[in-house]
Amino acid sequence: MISFAERTVLITGGLGFVGSNLARRLVTLGARVTLVDSLIPQYGGNEHNVADLLGRVTVNVCDVRDRFALEHLLRGQDFLFNLAGQTSHLDSMNDPQTDLDINASAQLSILEACRRVNPAIRVVFASTRQLYGRPEYLPVDENHPIRPVDVNGINKFAGEGYHLLYSSIYGIRATVLRLTNTYGRGMRVKDARQTFLGIWIRQLLEGRTIKVFGDGTQLRDFNHVDDCVDALLLAAAADVAVGRVYNLGSEEVVSLKSLAELMTQLRPGGCFELVPFPAERKAIDIGDYYSDFTRIRDELGWSPKVDLRSGLQSTVDYYDLNHRHYWDESAA
Amino acid sequence: MISFAERTVLITGGLGFVGSNLARRLVTLGARVTLVDSLIPQYGGNEHNVADLLGRVTVNVCDVRDRFALEHLLRGQDFLFNLAGQTSHLDSMNDPQTDLDINASAQLSILEACRRVNPAIRVVFASTRQLYGRPEYLPVDENHPIRPVDVNGINKFAGEGYHLLYSSIYGIRATVLRLTNTYGRGMRVKDARQTFLGIWIRQLLEGRTIKVFGDGTQLRDFNHVDDCVDALLLAAAADVAVGRVYNLGSEEVVSLKSLAELMTQLRPGGCFELVPFPAERKAIDIGDYYSDFTRIRDELGWSPKVDLRSGLQSTVDYYDLNHRHYWDESAA
Repeated sequence: MISFAERTVLITGGLGFVGSNLARRLVTLGARVTLVDSLIPQYGGNEHNVADLLGRVTVNVCDVRDRFALEHLLRGQDFLFNLAGQTSHLDSMNDPQTDLDINASAQLSILEACRRVNPAIRVVFASTRQLYGRPEYLPVDENHPIRPVDVNGINKFAGEGYHLLYSSIYGIRATVLRLTNTYGRGMRVKDARQTFLGIWIRQLLEGRTIKVFGDGTQLRDFNHVDDCVDALLLAAAADVAVGRVYNLGSEEVVSLKSLAELMTQLRPGGCFELVPFPAERKAIDIGDYYSDFTRIRDELGWSPKVDLRSGLQSTVDYYDLNHRHYWDESAA
Repeated sequence: MISFAERTVLITGGLGFVGSNLARRLVTLGARVTLVDSLIPQYGGNEHNVADLLGRVTVNVCDVRDRFALEHLLRGQDFLFNLAGQTSHLDSMNDPQTDLDINASAQLSILEACRRVNPAIRVVFASTRQLYGRPEYLPVDENHPIRPVDVNGINKFAGEGYHLLYSSIYGIRATVLRLTNTYGRGMRVKDARQTFLGIWIRQLLEGRTIKVFGDGTQLRDFNHVDDCVDALLLAAAADVAVGRVYNLGSEEVVSLKSLAELMTQLRPGGCFELVPFPAERKAIDIGDYYSDFTRIRDELGWSPKVDLRSGLQSTVDYYDLNHRHYWDESAA
């Protein structure tokens, strides 16, 4: 792989879950990293995610909708990891225009800024499996029809579409990764806005019963954030990845019930229960999902390395030590 | 088919090409029709398109981005034919945010307004074959991958996605039609913003040489606007069409060169020539395209009835009589 030493890197959503882990890795690789984050309370940004990196990265708090700020920040960057986004499915339904502003409009604005001030930049955009909707077949590969079941999926597809288009038409070299459920240190655990797994971790650590919606038979795949960071770096480094879309995924496919069981084994007294789907969750439930990640394995040599049990253990251990930075005890 | 007599109908883009022809038909069917149009000069709206309908329809000039106006106009309507859009591929590349505002953001706003003030409304949304991009196979059916080659295609796909989502989640009964090249009375012929066929008609009537880009072998299908209006009404009337996407299309597939030849036969002295693609056109050229419209034929009983020669003849005849309302002679 190419060296990231002394390379300039901008990460949008840099104080968020994936962005902060990517920043940590890039710092160890010697990159000169700038983090952009809006710190909107409902989103994933959290200053504690980069507390160990202060002094070794540049932090710029602003919204990706801030066109002029982004234009300034993009100048001179070798790489853009474009990870900022509104990720909550329910928030996208309750406030669809904001989801559109962030996941579509701001992306277009960022790409226009790249055209104007830095057309040689290399871009990796974090998209989501959410845009496939309810799978028509499993595992889901990149050619699966796009049938989003929420506003978020529609807008994320537009966002990745702009990246691919600006890559093919204007030569803004971009790669799209469609992330599946990602977990690990720095994920939002205060609530279920980023993933249900976040709130499960909180429930486990607070000694509460983990709530599994439905009958728990739904299948999912999970990636530890370290594996996700591997994929981001491989995508940025590979010429073959320009203009391409890649699924992430895992061969370790588990039912939600099995996952909950596994989690309860990580803490003494851990327990879970099956509860009926809330109506607004049921409407956007997609049933079973897991990815076919053959393309990125074959083209970029990526495969996940962290097994679910050890990945969850280290994640739970992290929140055990750091929970005061991630949720308000008094609001428990 | 259900009766449209005394039914209330709102048409966005109502002074435009398809909207005005739909309005004319609905007036003959006894509907109470309100037309919304922004009359943005670069778009398809033209007062002359409805000159024969004045006094029999209500015209309200406003932009579909005008949220409060639309909310007011949507109240009490039985049907919404949602035809307003930015349709120019080149304009979508030169001003992508405006394309996004009109084709995505305003659509979301309209659907939110339907939720709030008229959730029982029946909606038909005019989308475009442009979102398929370069065909992977022919004819292109509705399951073809979505690979837009311009910002317009990305935003139109988001626009139709919102319609399908609001149909499935909130019960705002909507149908999406993906139009192919549509032609006929009322089309924009001043320039190539709506379709190249428009500027060809102008070139023919002005006694100029029709310019065919490339080698003229690209295949296309065309629908006369009367057939398109049939499809819109069938879609609005059929319960089976709720939540569905349908291609329009034609079995009369022709090369651009053959089409140009056909057109030159419609006027004495008509001629055409092959000219190299302008660079910005070449970048978004999709090669051959024609639709598989089996789904709408089987489910709604639609098929095109106007053959290309007679449809083009009546269209050219219309512009021969009315050209002063469609382009500025002095700017010829």
